[in-house]
Amino acid sequence: MSYSIAILGASGYTGAELIRLIARHPSIEIKALGAFSKAGQTVAQVYPHLRHLDLPAMVPFDQIDWSGIDLCFCALPHKTSQEVIRDLPKSLKIVDLSADFRLRDPEAYQKWYGNPHSAVEMQGEAVYGLTEFYRDEIAGARLVAGTGCNAATGQFALRPLIAAGVIDLDEIILDLKAAVSGAGRALKENLLHAELSEGYHAYALGSTHRHLGEFDQEFSKVAGRDVHIQFQPHLIPANRGILGTAYVRGDAQAVHDTLAAAYDDEVFVEVLPMGEAPSTRHIRGSNFCHIGVVPDRRPGRAIVIAALDNLTKGSSGQALQNANLMLDISETEGLMMAPLFP
Amino acid sequence: MSYSIAILGASGYTGAELIRLIARHPSIEIKALGAFSKAGQTVAQVYPHLRHLDLPAMVPFDQIDWSGIDLCFCALPHKTSQEVIRDLPKSLKIVDLSADFRLRDPEAYQKWYGNPHSAVEMQGEAVYGLTEFYRDEIAGARLVAGTGCNAATGQFALRPLIAAGVIDLDEIILDLKAAVSGAGRALKENLLHAELSEGYHAYALGSTHRHLGEFDQEFSKVAGRDVHIQFQPHLIPANRGILGTAYVRGDAQAVHDTLAAAYDDEVFVEVLPMGEAPSTRHIRGSNFCHIGVVPDRRPGRAIVIAALDNLTKGSSGQALQNANLMLDISETEGLMMAPLFP
Amino acid sequence: MSYSIAILGASGYTGAELIRLIARHPSIEIKALGAFSKAGQTVAQVYPHLRHLDLPAMVPFDQIDWSGIDLCFCALPHKTSQEVIRDLPKSLKIVDLSADFRLRDPEAYQKWYGNPHSAVEMQGEAVYGLTEFYRDEIAGARLVAGTGCNAATGQFALRPLIAAGVIDLDEIILDLKAAVSGAGRALKENLLHAELSEGYHAYALGSTHRHLGEFDQEFSKVAGRDVHIQFQPHLIPANRGILGTAYVRGDAQAVHDTLAAAYDDEVFVEVLPMGEAPSTRHIRGSNFCHIGVVPDRRPGRAIVIAALDNLTKGSSGQALQNANLMLDISETEGLMMAPLFP
Amino acid sequence: MSYSIAILGASGYTGAELIRLIARHPSIEIKALGAFSKAGQTVAQVYPHLRHLDLPAMVPFDQIDWSGIDLCFCALPHKTSQEVIRDLPKSLKIVDLSADFRLRDPEAYQKWYGNPHSAVEMQGEAVYGLTEFYRDEIAGARLVAGTGCNAATGQFALRPLIAAGVIDLDEIILDLKAAVSGAGRALKENLLHAELSEGYHAYALGSTHRHLGEFDQEFSKVAGRDVHIQFQPHLIPANRGILGTAYVRGDAQAVHDTLAAAYDDEVFVEVLPMGEAPSTRHIRGSNFCHIGVVPDRRPGRAIVIAALDNLTKGSSGQALQNANLMLDISETEGLMMAPLFP
Repeated sequence: MSYSIAILGASGYTGAELIRLIARHPSIEIKALGAFSKAGQTVAQVYPHLRHLDLPAMVPFDQIDWSGIDLCFCALPHKTSQEVIRDLPKSLKIVDLSADFRLRDPEAYQKWYGNPHSAVEMQGEAVYGLTEFYRDEIAGARLVAGTGCNAATGQFALRPLIAAGVIDLDEIILDLKAAVSGAGRALKENLLHAELSEGYHAYALGSTHRHLGEFDQEFSKVAGRDVHIQFQPHLIPANRGILGTAYVRGDAQAVHDTLAAAYDDEVFVEVLPMGEAPSTRHIRGSNFCHIGVVPDRRPGRAIVIAALDNLTKGSSGQALQNANLMLDISETEGLMMAPLFP
Repeated sequence: MSYSIAILGASGYTGAELIRLIARHPSIEIKALGAFSKAGQTVAQVYPHLRHLDLPAMVPFDQIDWSGIDLCFCALPHKTSQEVIRDLPKSLKIVDLSADFRLRDPEAYQKWYGNPHSAVEMQGEAVYGLTEFYRDEIAGARLVAGTGCNAATGQFALRPLIAAGVIDLDEIILDLKAAVSGAGRALKENLLHAELSEGYHAYALGSTHRHLGEFDQEFSKVAGRDVHIQFQPHLIPANRGILGTAYVRGDAQAVHDTLAAAYDDEVFVEVLPMGEAPSTRHIRGSNFCHIGVVPDRRPGRAIVIAALDNLTKGSSGQALQNANLMLDISETEGLMMAPLFP
Repeated sequence: MSYSIAILGASGYTGAELIRLIARHPSIEIKALGAFSKAGQTVAQVYPHLRHLDLPAMVPFDQIDWSGIDLCFCALPHKTSQEVIRDLPKSLKIVDLSADFRLRDPEAYQKWYGNPHSAVEMQGEAVYGLTEFYRDEIAGARLVAGTGCNAATGQFALRPLIAAGVIDLDEIILDLKAAVSGAGRALKENLLHAELSEGYHAYALGSTHRHLGEFDQEFSKVAGRDVHIQFQPHLIPANRGILGTAYVRGDAQAVHDTLAAAYDDEVFVEVLPMGEAPSTRHIRGSNFCHIGVVPDRRPGRAIVIAALDNLTKGSSGQALQNANLMLDISETEGLMMAPLFP
Repeated sequence: MSYSIAILGASGYTGAELIRLIARHPSIEIKALGAFSKAGQTVAQVYPHLRHLDLPAMVPFDQIDWSGIDLCFCALPHKTSQEVIRDLPKSLKIVDLSADFRLRDPEAYQKWYGNPHSAVEMQGEAVYGLTEFYRDEIAGARLVAGTGCNAATGQFALRPLIAAGVIDLDEIILDLKAAVSGAGRALKENLLHAELSEGYHAYALGSTHRHLGEFDQEFSKVAGRDVHIQFQPHLIPANRGILGTAYVRGDAQAVHDTLAAAYDDEVFVEVLPMGEAPSTRHIRGSNFCHIGVVPDRRPGRAIVIAALDNLTKGSSGQALQNANLMLDISETEGLMMAPLFP
């Protein structure tokens, strides 16, 4: 059985990553590619690294014939995404990679993103796309909201611990090191090679990063009470990768046991042996998340470190994982490639 | 039909790359991994990025049971390779990634590598593993010698031009920019991040690089006369990639036409439209080679630029491509992954 | 004796580099900083790395009081520069870092830059600012045109050879590897860290780079006949540095002797021992240019490799060197800092 | 008045950085350079970037004539350093850059470094070289122990806060991001460009880094009670720089006020305006330390971020700052160079 999909916003990094993954998928076919400013160009023009593929040209959204398309990936900027998705055929399954349907509460959305939501009615319908924790809902969903890449990293490290109550819920600090492709293809001075190389720094200072909206929503839901972590991300001179270092209060062995049990059956989340830590060089270009647990010298404190590729497991890989579920394909199909090393 | 293979020298970069590729191959199974200093360790210990794979442990070579193994990849240092291969079962098909069987002439081998060859009798038997040009011989070979990564890049750019006589054979200059993984996992000061990052430079000065032995052998053979190019490589602060810039005398359009015709049926070698040039960011982690042709402002002069990933098309990808042929599997099997971008 | 200077275009990389150098100069004081879009900001806002300095705020050009200012550095985009300089007080000494006054011939300017020159009368007056070769003219000049950074690199490698006639003037190829700060602070996709890191490539294909206008002018002048080299630059994932590899015909020893003699008395240009090659890591942040000569395996052919820092010796350092001469200060004042390594 | 100095261990990164700085110092002259394995070589051979300098050759330690030398910098590995320093003339002033004399307590030394101290009698004499906090003792000292580069970063961020009691002493977490030159010129796989570039990770897991010995000693001394922070460093793909992110409990404004007051008269430590954060790109190659304070969204919690160059303010720059004091030279002499940007 083969399925047909479309990708809207195909000219950004997450769009390109979707194409990379789906091009090798045995039962999904790319039928349409939608773009704004680059509409009218071929994929080879926009992405010379994909020139060997036989793909449809990039077209304006309104030129896409939706009949015969089973699922649509939306890799659009937030705010744009909700406006586009609102008007898509209701029969279409949708995986949204933007921030627009991650938050269930319209007020939370407005607080973190600064504008009222223009498809409030769909917010309730959307399923939060953290596959390992919403597998059943995703399988039955029409609209799945891909998580933030930082939000995914933090949740893989912390969510089972919060659910199990093995750490102090009021004392969670997440210090995150993000590679630059997570910022997208935006033309900003601090993303230039001349400035970022040899120039790393914190951003979204003092727990102001928008992905905190997701942490608050999800961690509070799991805990059954309000949980508000501290979260400070940093921009690192690397292309792909997120390394999240979480400082928690709890017994390190219990922390490790809890994570090991939580992910025991998971293909893509690997808990390293106690005392080992992951590196971004070991997950690059793959859909794997590596998690390490380290006891601190101070008893009762542990460090949990999670590493994943922001464009794969943090975004497009997870999106495909969700699409597989929604289309009743094997969840790991097209996603088992090994990391690129070195 | 499924085949069993072994990899000797599994702990180096080309060995890791072989595992990355073969792990997803539908009809080849890794049955044994041989190592020297890292024998006794699991793959997950040596290569944490491969920890999700169910692979045999690394063992000393003499503990490998060769019965039932169809083909062996040797990813060993040169000189060691010939000694090991000499003693392997004669029934075994072998793809050697070292330099040991690239040169047919024992004297040429000694000239470029500094030691007499210790398996001279096998030098004659070996087939030069530049797949696109030795396809039939490789399919029937028992021992195939993988090409040098720089040698492959230069030959993809130049070989059809030399064969067709559309360029002046005495006026070929190849200026090459090589990423650092081509130097292997050797611990040398100039390969340290602190020194190479922001510190690029020429090496193997004045056409002294050993891959010239391959250029001389192959280009002279194709031309039917001696051809001795100038070749100056440079080390670039990047992990993967080779960019070769060849300065040739000839009509640019004829050069482009010749290359386009030569690779018209080739899956892995893409000739860009006239006047476009490739980038290493568009072939990273893939088995593709991109070639561009540019006319110079001086009439009768052209620039040919080729880009490939030294560990994939330049080494382990090509090795698998050859193994596919030797095992009568589709040549592209396991090799059609798209490049990793960004 | 102390001199007062102004910098126009202080918010670009070359402007920042001028401030870095002049801030430690014992006899030059920065009196005014002119900017366009960043006018009104303090230096600390625009350049936090200069926040320890006590500098005037950035102001619009028309707010600068030119009385009492001895010399003005113009670090503006080309075309803008000529319009601004045309209207500056005629009593002011000027060092222009743009391309606007490098070419003496208005037609050559229009050919390479695409627009007619709007200060043709000043083109004749300007002195070409390659200090080591125009020292006397620069000392007496009112307007000095800083060279292109690539143009400087190529001339340091080749100019004495062309002047001495020790190489074949019709067979010169310059393959250049440029770090990204030479492209300025422009917001372009290929300058993003995510794209340039791991993604190097040729640009200005087939001898179309504008700095060829300078090569043609200067090499032809020195040779007393037309000289048109081939010149292909490449963009490298590094912040600072230019490495130029020149392929020439001539006796390598004669080439080395000629360069060694030419720069024997020069403080900033170092000719390495025969057979050694420079690296960008050995000149970073300094005003030094290192030159190496290597014989090729083919008799009568040599390779000349020159390395310098595009922002220092290639631009702002050279500009200060020229200003020192124009103000009758010791030429090396403020420029003897050692390279930053690693 | 001019002073003569020697550098032992001149062939490592901190030795090279000392030469870079002292070469431009108006009143200090390098009289001897001592090395082990590279003895007998010239500086130009070991460090081509210093080839323009007229420096003594590198000699074995026992060939150095100590008469006429006022001060010796020891840039040796720890353990070696104590053995060498023990036997130096007692009249010599010494600035040690190793870890050997940082800890006053022989047991603490043995705990963190694993071997008994072989110059215990000198441990008591040594002054801890964090200039801004030990200025008077350093001025009168014979032996000054340079601080660890990570230890310096953490102390600049935290020491005034601990002294002032404006933060909770039991709840201090320091998450540090260190560039690779801090690991020295050691040949290790994880320091190779191919592995570190795109591969960042934590090391010295769970507060096991040796610099914690310094934090414990100094913070406890300042607090008048035991203070044991959590400290987790990470290795980042950059050459120079340390960014320390400290998570503290206390009023952010009080934290900022305390730091601003503490460093108000300090030339090299700059406290940024409230709410701003530093970047390593703004201190590279300089002796400056930038500190930012950010309130967290959770009341009563603040983030303090400090950035410095590990080789300059974190090591050799600070060493020179101390030497200036010991020789009664202006403390900032030779150290006011602006950072290299970009």
